[in-house]
Amino acid sequence: MKKAILIVQCSDQKGIVAEVSRFLYSYNGNILEVDQHVDVEMGMFFMRAAWELDSFFLGKDEILPRFEEEVGKRFKMEIKLHFDFPRPRMAIFVSKLSHCLFDILGRHHAGQLEVDIPVVVSNHSDLKPIVEAFGIPFFIIPVSSSNKESAEALQLQLLEEHRVDFVVLARYMQILSGDFIRHFPNRIINIHHSFLPAFVGARPYHAAFERGVKIIGATAHYVTEELDAGPIIEQEVARVRHHNTIAELVQIGQDVEKVTLSKAIKYHLDRKVLAFRNKTIIFY
Amino acid sequence: MKKAILIVQCSDQKGIVAEVSRFLYSYNGNILEVDQHVDVEMGMFFMRAAWELDSFFLGKDEILPRFEEEVGKRFKMEIKLHFDFPRPRMAIFVSKLSHCLFDILGRHHAGQLEVDIPVVVSNHSDLKPIVEAFGIPFFIIPVSSSNKESAEALQLQLLEEHRVDFVVLARYMQILSGDFIRHFPNRIINIHHSFLPAFVGARPYHAAFERGVKIIGATAHYVTEELDAGPIIEQEVARVRHHNTIAELVQIGQDVEKVTLSKAIKYHLDRKVLAFRNKTIIFY
Amino acid sequence: MKKAILIVQCSDQKGIVAEVSRFLYSYNGNILEVDQHVDVEMGMFFMRAAWELDSFFLGKDEILPRFEEEVGKRFKMEIKLHFDFPRPRMAIFVSKLSHCLFDILGRHHAGQLEVDIPVVVSNHSDLKPIVEAFGIPFFIIPVSSSNKESAEALQLQLLEEHRVDFVVLARYMQILSGDFIRHFPNRIINIHHSFLPAFVGARPYHAAFERGVKIIGATAHYVTEELDAGPIIEQEVARVRHHNTIAELVQIGQDVEKVTLSKAIKYHLDRKVLAFRNKTIIFY
Amino acid sequence: MKKAILIVQCSDQKGIVAEVSRFLYSYNGNILEVDQHVDVEMGMFFMRAAWELDSFFLGKDEILPRFEEEVGKRFKMEIKLHFDFPRPRMAIFVSKLSHCLFDILGRHHAGQLEVDIPVVVSNHSDLKPIVEAFGIPFFIIPVSSSNKESAEALQLQLLEEHRVDFVVLARYMQILSGDFIRHFPNRIINIHHSFLPAFVGARPYHAAFERGVKIIGATAHYVTEELDAGPIIEQEVARVRHHNTIAELVQIGQDVEKVTLSKAIKYHLDRKVLAFRNKTIIFY
Repeated sequence: MKKAILIVQCSDQKGIVAEVSRFLYSYNGNILEVDQHVDVEMGMFFMRAAWELDSFFLGKDEILPRFEEEVGKRFKMEIKLHFDFPRPRMAIFVSKLSHCLFDILGRHHAGQLEVDIPVVVSNHSDLKPIVEAFGIPFFIIPVSSSNKESAEALQLQLLEEHRVDFVVLARYMQILSGDFIRHFPNRIINIHHSFLPAFVGARPYHAAFERGVKIIGATAHYVTEELDAGPIIEQEVARVRHHNTIAELVQIGQDVEKVTLSKAIKYHLDRKVLAFRNKTIIFY
Repeated sequence: MKKAILIVQCSDQKGIVAEVSRFLYSYNGNILEVDQHVDVEMGMFFMRAAWELDSFFLGKDEILPRFEEEVGKRFKMEIKLHFDFPRPRMAIFVSKLSHCLFDILGRHHAGQLEVDIPVVVSNHSDLKPIVEAFGIPFFIIPVSSSNKESAEALQLQLLEEHRVDFVVLARYMQILSGDFIRHFPNRIINIHHSFLPAFVGARPYHAAFERGVKIIGATAHYVTEELDAGPIIEQEVARVRHHNTIAELVQIGQDVEKVTLSKAIKYHLDRKVLAFRNKTIIFY
Repeated sequence: MKKAILIVQCSDQKGIVAEVSRFLYSYNGNILEVDQHVDVEMGMFFMRAAWELDSFFLGKDEILPRFEEEVGKRFKMEIKLHFDFPRPRMAIFVSKLSHCLFDILGRHHAGQLEVDIPVVVSNHSDLKPIVEAFGIPFFIIPVSSSNKESAEALQLQLLEEHRVDFVVLARYMQILSGDFIRHFPNRIINIHHSFLPAFVGARPYHAAFERGVKIIGATAHYVTEELDAGPIIEQEVARVRHHNTIAELVQIGQDVEKVTLSKAIKYHLDRKVLAFRNKTIIFY
Repeated sequence: MKKAILIVQCSDQKGIVAEVSRFLYSYNGNILEVDQHVDVEMGMFFMRAAWELDSFFLGKDEILPRFEEEVGKRFKMEIKLHFDFPRPRMAIFVSKLSHCLFDILGRHHAGQLEVDIPVVVSNHSDLKPIVEAFGIPFFIIPVSSSNKESAEALQLQLLEEHRVDFVVLARYMQILSGDFIRHFPNRIINIHHSFLPAFVGARPYHAAFERGVKIIGATAHYVTEELDAGPIIEQEVARVRHHNTIAELVQIGQDVEKVTLSKAIKYHLDRKVLAFRNKTIIFY
């Protein structure tokens, strides 16, 4: 069964659900999922509808213009249309830490992620053998303070060559430039190793240890130019105790990081994340 | 702002969302929430829609027949229509344990529960003073093995006199007869002090202690004639350790019980619970 | 069974556990619980031991001097000795919000808290009737920007008259002066309505809403002169979603607040909290 | 720093902590961790002590006999002595499901598990390439209803040849014979894919789906001859919703399984698990 997913947003008005569902029904669409959200404060309407494509009367390329014409124009909608085929293409950026990467590769190997992974990019060679054992190409692009610009140019070229749709920073440890980020708006997912907005910055487990918190966390978010401030996709936490050393906080935290990042990837793949301004709507 | 809530279920067919939303729009309904669920295995469709009533073109009493005529008949729907006014009327049955009762009363006092509580029924007098301090009538109906039938008759009469819509068993400790239950189908909410289906029966904390589980829980469910087997509305858990005595398990568990029961009551009040056969759909 | 609880801290050295346990054994102490923690970074040793007092060869008043003489002096220990009788005396400060207060009163009524509550202090009269229904005296001391000093003087007098051991701020909403706080070092427990250090300040739920976090929390901590910065005793969290309004965040958060505060009170009562500098060791 | 870990159990008596800590101190032991537990109902005492070995006056082989002579005999203790070197040797049994296996291999690769993995045993060849990419030998021993006895003989021989200390069943899907189990008492860790004792047996996710539970879980336990009934080491849970299919329950559950199993392995490796009768004491 093939599936289409329509995501629309516009200012809140009466009749939107009726018109969208009428449109789908009029072309014989069998609705599988429909979710809507009204942000009362902003007066904004958001909707996601998924339907079976096989029996639909419109071809893939006809849907968007026809919907724009029949429905979108009237409500001044911002429209996105996705299909669950071909599978999206995800690049993974990684440094030396393996926990998030291996978790993603394991899920991919088990058939849990409907995505192609044409490229893993790293500034270090450490994780190359395992990644290649999973049958995935591994590219080493060293990054230093002096070559950052050219390194990013190489990365962007690689992503373009492999027609990458979105990028996952699996504890990549390098800060991307604004220019790089603008190539993938709300299409770079980062895992931050703290419960944002607590403990922004580079050493959150040390900060958590110093403050003596009883719970630590991790935050998966879209990358924006302001560091650690992009729309939050998912957060998870774990309990810690006074006897946990910083090294133990790191280990406990890594478990949280990998689960949180993988959930965010799943939501993103399922087109369940709507980012608007600095927040996300997640229709799970 | 007044609100109407429509809940429908029928066999799954195309066009239901379109028709329901068209109906609401055609009478100037401003949809606030819409959720749907398709149970693929059973081929069943479930939908809940809430809309503002103030600007709606149909009066309260016109909605159901008109909807039945225009939409329901065609899809052979089972239809429920609710309004968020007047507030529903809830009875609480309690025995000697106070934690669930006080939690409900505290929430009610703080204005968190949109419900009237015309009557608290107990087989003991212990909790009378506090309940009355909250301004709620307290009725003592002793129950023994010999008078159960007449006690239930009294209870039913009381519920009828006070036009009670649904009943909450806040650790009531007495097993209701099938006859009693049939007066309130899916309208009696019980809190069972274990993570069902683990540890059915009367002494689940003892059983959990014996088995050495690391997590205990509580289950809020609608009461059916088969004991501890009704549709589950909500479950919560808490971690326990080897050094916890049975008395401590009971205390930890009571915290879980009261939170779980109050969540279930909230879902029920918000008309977010759809019970079908032995399961629930919760549109939260 | 009566119980003594010894808490010691000193720089880390060999033989401390041996000497402390030898001391207790030499006077026929039956050890019920023993916990120790070494903070390697600070080179500090912390220990808590609880034992049965009934068969102990030393009287209540003999223990401390004898222990100081036989063990404490040698290791340069800071020593605290507690007994589980008479019950400690707790004051509750509250404003208009009832959820934390009622949760504590409910537990106290159910016999879960081994504490006397001689006084509830509020700057408003709203909660008086319920508190008095629980049989607990309620004192109204209005607080304004102009009378804060005299109000605190009244409060301190009240606490002294009622021989209060520690104070619980159950969403009291007023900032206590440094002078007041110095009367009760690590003996004032506050509940902050966020997952500290995220969202310090007065309106954390608004801030959490603005930031679009997926999890909110609450923090129980000892009050120090620096606002929201005292040693954390307990933290708890709850999941929230994009559709939750600020009002719903507040309600979800209040559930977390009351559970977190009650846990912190329990740890404090059981003498399981060791505060050192800005952190706590919790021997649960 | 090298470490020794002593675990003792005996009937509860006065003076045990004093005597054990005196013994360690008398030979210049620097205690790192000490935990004790009294099971009041059974009248049993359990204790775990870890100390630095480097400065200890007794050699590795002298400790146990000397302790037995000086302390153990008097209290009729059952004694276990462990060292954190050489590293214990763990075998992993696996079938086709990879999630638990990969999670363990990832942690091992990241240096989180102080254990050698000389052998992975499977009844299928599927996971061979990845396991070998991690540098770990993979042995295929097919199992059928007709060859089970000889297969187990091969397995036991393999475990003996590789001097395996304990076995992890990482969703191995085969039931081990009582004879096999008796070779590794409380040294076979299994992950059961449900929150035991709910949903014993082969298809717990189907059963959870049928019952409509709101939370699913996983249980790591020592294997005993009675199926799914051995001492529970760790349990974890995850929330599910009405719209989750059985396939989704499986995926959500697999995340819980792998985390739960890895925690249990960690506790076992740290010698923090004391199994007594059908329960465990976990000194974490």
